Amino acid sequence: MKLLEERIVKDGIVRDGGVLKVDNFLNHQIDVELLNEMGAEWKRLFSDAQINKILTIEASGIGIACIAAQHFGVPVVFAKKARTKNIDGETLSTTVHSFTHGRDFDVMVAKRFLTPGDRLLIVDDFLANGCALNGLIDLANQAGATVEGIAIAVEKGFQGGGDALRERGFKLESLAIVDSMDPKTGSIEFRS
Amino acid sequence: MKLLEERIVKDGIVRDGGVLKVDNFLNHQIDVELLNEMGAEWKRLFSDAQINKILTIEASGIGIACIAAQHFGVPVVFAKKARTKNIDGETLSTTVHSFTHGRDFDVMVAKRFLTPGDRLLIVDDFLANGCALNGLIDLANQAGATVEGIAIAVEKGFQGGGDALRERGFKLESLAIVDSMDPKTGSIEFRS
Repeated sequence: MKLLEERIVKDGIVRDGGVLKVDNFLNHQIDVELLNEMGAEWKRLFSDAQINKILTIEASGIGIACIAAQHFGVPVVFAKKARTKNIDGETLSTTVHSFTHGRDFDVMVAKRFLTPGDRLLIVDDFLANGCALNGLIDLANQAGATVEGIAIAVEKGFQGGGDALRERGFKLESLAIVDSMDPKTGSIEFRS
Repeated sequence: MKLLEERIVKDGIVRDGGVLKVDNFLNHQIDVELLNEMGAEWKRLFSDAQINKILTIEASGIGIACIAAQHFGVPVVFAKKARTKNIDGETLSTTVHSFTHGRDFDVMVAKRFLTPGDRLLIVDDFLANGCALNGLIDLANQAGATVEGIAIAVEKGFQGGGDALRERGFKLESLAIVDSMDPKTGSIEFRS
C-alpha cells in the first residue's frame, strides 16, 4: 500500500537490532485517517472472505482492528495480556514471546467470544517473527474457529515470520513489507 | 446516552464488589457501531472545545479513542503501561492504581507526543475512583498541555471519582453514569 510505505519512509525511524519505530503514526500516536485507509484496503483485499469477527491482541492492534472492523461491519475481540477481575468464566489462553518486550507473556480470550462458528480476520500492527500471530492462531484453533485471513500493517520481511505463515497456507496481507533497512543511512527497502 | 444505557441493561453483568462487566460490547469484545455512536455524541457534547489530540490509556481505551478521534479529526496518543524497546528518547511517566487489576503500574508517554500546545480530550472506557484519569491528567500537566475535556463511556457514580473531577473544574462527560447496582437482582440505576 503506497500510502503506508510513503508514511514509513517519511516518519519511520530505523534503529539497530532490526527495530523500526513507527510510533508517531501507528502504535503510540495514531493517525486515524491512515488507519481508515488501511481498513478500506484490507476490505478490498479480503472482499471474497466471509468474515464475522476481527481478532487482535492488546495493545497496539486494538485501534487498527476497530477502525478496520467498521469496513467489515463486524465486532472486534482482543486477546488480553493479563488476567483481571473483569475476566471470569472459562478462558482460552496461550503463551506468546514478545520481540518488542523481550519476554514471554500469557494472552487469553474469554471462551464465549471465540466459537466454532467464527470466521476470523486476525489484525495486528506488526509482523516480525510471527509469535503474536501464532498465539492468536492457537487461540482460534482452540476455539474451533476458522482463520479466514491475516491483515498486517507492517511486516518485517527479513525476519521470516510472514513467509512461514504463507507457507502454512494462510491468506496474509501485509500493507507494507520491509525487506531490508539500514540503521546507518535510515534507508528502507520494501518488497514489491 | 440512551443507547449505551440500554446496552448496559441488556448485556452488562453486575458482580459483587462493585464490578460491572461490559466485556461483550465495550472492553473485550467491541461493538464498533456502538463506539461510533458514542464518538458522535462526544463530538456533540464537546462541540465548543478546541481539541487537537485525544489522549487515552492502554488497553481498553484505545478502540474507543480511535473511533471517537474520527469524529474530531485528530490523532490519538495512548499512554503505555510498560517500557518497550520501541519507546526511547524522553518520556513522561506517572503511577496509576488499577481497580481492575488490584495493583499499581507505571504508565508513560513519549514527550514528543504531548506538548505545551496540545488541547486534549481524555477518553477512557471506565471511570470508577478516577485513578487512571488522574494519571493521564498528571501526564498532561507534566507536558504543559491543556485538558479541554474528559470523555468517559461508563462512570460508576457511586465510587465518586467522577464527581471529584467535576469539583476540580474538569468538563467531564460520561455517556452512562451508574449510581447504584445490585449483584443479587442484576438491577442497575442510572443517574438522570
